[in-house]
Amino acid sequence: MYLSREYAPQGIGLGPLLQRAQSDKASVKETVRDVLDTVRLKGDTALYQYESQFDNATLSSLEVTEKEFQEAETLVSDSLKQALGHAAKNIRAFHQCQMPFGEHLVVEEGVELSRKIVPIHTVGLYIPGGTAPLFSTVLMLAIPASVAKCPCVVMCTPPSKEGKVNPAILYAAKISGVSKVYKVGGAQAIAAMAYGTESIGKVDKIFGPGNRFVMEAKLQVASQCCAIDMPAGPSEVMVIADRASNPEFVASDLLSQAEHGPDSQAMLLLIADREDADVYLDKLEEAIAVQLRALPRTEFLLSSLSHSHAIVVCDGKSACAVANAYAPEHLIINTTNADELEKKIENAGSIFLGPWSCESAGDYASGTNHTLPTSGWAHSYSGVSVDSFLKKITLQRLSEQGLRNLAPTIETMAGFEMLDAHKNAVAIRIGESK
Amino acid sequence: MYLSREYAPQGIGLGPLLQRAQSDKASVKETVRDVLDTVRLKGDTALYQYESQFDNATLSSLEVTEKEFQEAETLVSDSLKQALGHAAKNIRAFHQCQMPFGEHLVVEEGVELSRKIVPIHTVGLYIPGGTAPLFSTVLMLAIPASVAKCPCVVMCTPPSKEGKVNPAILYAAKISGVSKVYKVGGAQAIAAMAYGTESIGKVDKIFGPGNRFVMEAKLQVASQCCAIDMPAGPSEVMVIADRASNPEFVASDLLSQAEHGPDSQAMLLLIADREDADVYLDKLEEAIAVQLRALPRTEFLLSSLSHSHAIVVCDGKSACAVANAYAPEHLIINTTNADELEKKIENAGSIFLGPWSCESAGDYASGTNHTLPTSGWAHSYSGVSVDSFLKKITLQRLSEQGLRNLAPTIETMAGFEMLDAHKNAVAIRIGESK
Repeated sequence: MYLSREYAPQGIGLGPLLQRAQSDKASVKETVRDVLDTVRLKGDTALYQYESQFDNATLSSLEVTEKEFQEAETLVSDSLKQALGHAAKNIRAFHQCQMPFGEHLVVEEGVELSRKIVPIHTVGLYIPGGTAPLFSTVLMLAIPASVAKCPCVVMCTPPSKEGKVNPAILYAAKISGVSKVYKVGGAQAIAAMAYGTESIGKVDKIFGPGNRFVMEAKLQVASQCCAIDMPAGPSEVMVIADRASNPEFVASDLLSQAEHGPDSQAMLLLIADREDADVYLDKLEEAIAVQLRALPRTEFLLSSLSHSHAIVVCDGKSACAVANAYAPEHLIINTTNADELEKKIENAGSIFLGPWSCESAGDYASGTNHTLPTSGWAHSYSGVSVDSFLKKITLQRLSEQGLRNLAPTIETMAGFEMLDAHKNAVAIRIGESK
Repeated sequence: MYLSREYAPQGIGLGPLLQRAQSDKASVKETVRDVLDTVRLKGDTALYQYESQFDNATLSSLEVTEKEFQEAETLVSDSLKQALGHAAKNIRAFHQCQMPFGEHLVVEEGVELSRKIVPIHTVGLYIPGGTAPLFSTVLMLAIPASVAKCPCVVMCTPPSKEGKVNPAILYAAKISGVSKVYKVGGAQAIAAMAYGTESIGKVDKIFGPGNRFVMEAKLQVASQCCAIDMPAGPSEVMVIADRASNPEFVASDLLSQAEHGPDSQAMLLLIADREDADVYLDKLEEAIAVQLRALPRTEFLLSSLSHSHAIVVCDGKSACAVANAYAPEHLIINTTNADELEKKIENAGSIFLGPWSCESAGDYASGTNHTLPTSGWAHSYSGVSVDSFLKKITLQRLSEQGLRNLAPTIETMAGFEMLDAHKNAVAIRIGESK
């Protein structure tokens, strides 16, 4: 059996099953603190040194040149260019309709309130290196920044040993409006964007995924000087299915999550009686076995499945209760009554409805964002959206009469809070004091 | 002279002047880590012990009882009740109009995307104790939570030595929809809300101001398990004025900020020629001297003014450049062309336009929120609003045809990212593989 089976007809006592793996981070914290301090003190010098040490790359400059961008464009195949264009169109369209409007309200005579929407000036995107070139993440971060009209969008990504950035990443950056790309990876890239160096300007907010060093670096700078998109852990999916759900589809969704890394989690909530459940789960196991044979990344797949579970629940209500407790990054509701169940979901990053909405559609091309809260953070965070690249600034304009009308209220409250200078700012204006 | 004078006609080289005070936090970090660990391990026992140790309060229970609420209501004066009612009405009205709508988009045939708006389930508000009862902050946090329809809103605030909570705080909590109030303060309150104890349930997000122990505790839990509103430092104001601005008004605004605490900052940007500037600043100094005589909290006022500055700039454009670099929590534009300057401001928590819009109007009663980004965080953060209490969850529903249309794009991208199981989830569905 690939998935452990748990029977929880009331959806109770699942606590330990729904826990995410916790990594011991003491040594990561120390290493990251050291990298951050070094970059802050030594700037570019530290970046060149770390790129040599961690990425085996000897760089002559950090910034990707116009020539490299042009070269990249010739190296990307037409089929990939077309796919990226299609995905970018959908991502842009959905994020465009997320653009908020400011409000304006005359709350009482002479008291005019409003909010204005302002893009964050300089945003930094981090795109990991590693085995696969994550050009899809470039689209998912740079397009909302472009829709929000952020004036300056920079990107850091680790170079290959040859000092090159994957052409598909550069092409994706170009079509989605990234201003500058730098060949820096890991915690040192986060440090460079948070503090600024000679080559890389300080940014206001950092976005993007990464390994535990990158994530720890983001958390550390977030408490010092630079906002981040959200804390993050390993990727995860929860699938809600019932007897009518095609087990091959369900198997393929669990596997597509499990291939992300060894610590991904692929959870199944099966709505069924105990006997039906076992019949269904046997079919599912068989489908997993068949599909596994044709897939690479077997080590990641098996490792992820080993800490994933199939949880059997008695009804849709229990399924939703478990899903809300787990707060999955991705929630696939592959049942005929998906819409009805979805109404009960309050904690999830993104929801996929019905049999045809596989997670990979949203990962790449439907138009929703794939940067989503993991590790239960969907209890409080939303995924990345245009909002993540905007600020809202409140404004007020009072007339003399407006202030006179509000004065007794302000003065009474300031008096009871023992803030006399607050009271004085009103009294001086309406001629009460001096 | 209360304010140091700096002449920077080009708005250049101001870096050091615009720096906020940095406190050395190593010992605070250690103490807080210890308090957090103790509360996580010992729960209520630790809370009772810390309340005895830090607040000199011997408590028999942590939760404020219905009887205490009723008692509080009888103790609050009618004038304060009326003032709180007036402020609450305006705060509710302005936050009500911030309520966003979800989007819905058929991005291409058979690909339906949307976002739904969901309140964060359980939010925890922290209200500091200390010299003044901050009932205004209760309104500023609990009313947006109520507008957002958060199902569970709890509050922690330190009790007096007699084990009581200030009646105005309880009354404000009651009229703004707080579910439960607990008598716990400091880092231990943050720990209780972040981890949960026997008496206090774990919350999803913590809001509210506090001393450096509270702030450090919020930062630490934010990287572990519980979202927070924003990082925060001492309160601050920047006033943009010119020769036509009433110096008494300007003095009163600087002083009303300076009284918050010894580390508050009250900055003036004066648009003037050098000679005019000195004449104006002499008048301002005189107004400060006169007003200071009538105010208590002299120690805070003088301490804050000692690290505040009057910066003279040659024109409105330079003033806005300096303001954007400083990114003030509160920005008062007390000039006749306030609207024109405001258009150039992109970094500020809240903006007050014209001579009659004193900061204390927004602090208490106009309806805007007073929980705002300090210490330059206005470069990336907005103040607290209804948004802070909501999540947005993306949804998608694909039809079979919708998936077929997207399939080549998804499969091409997944292939180049070497995520074959992602590709497989599409292929299985459209009958390409097995």
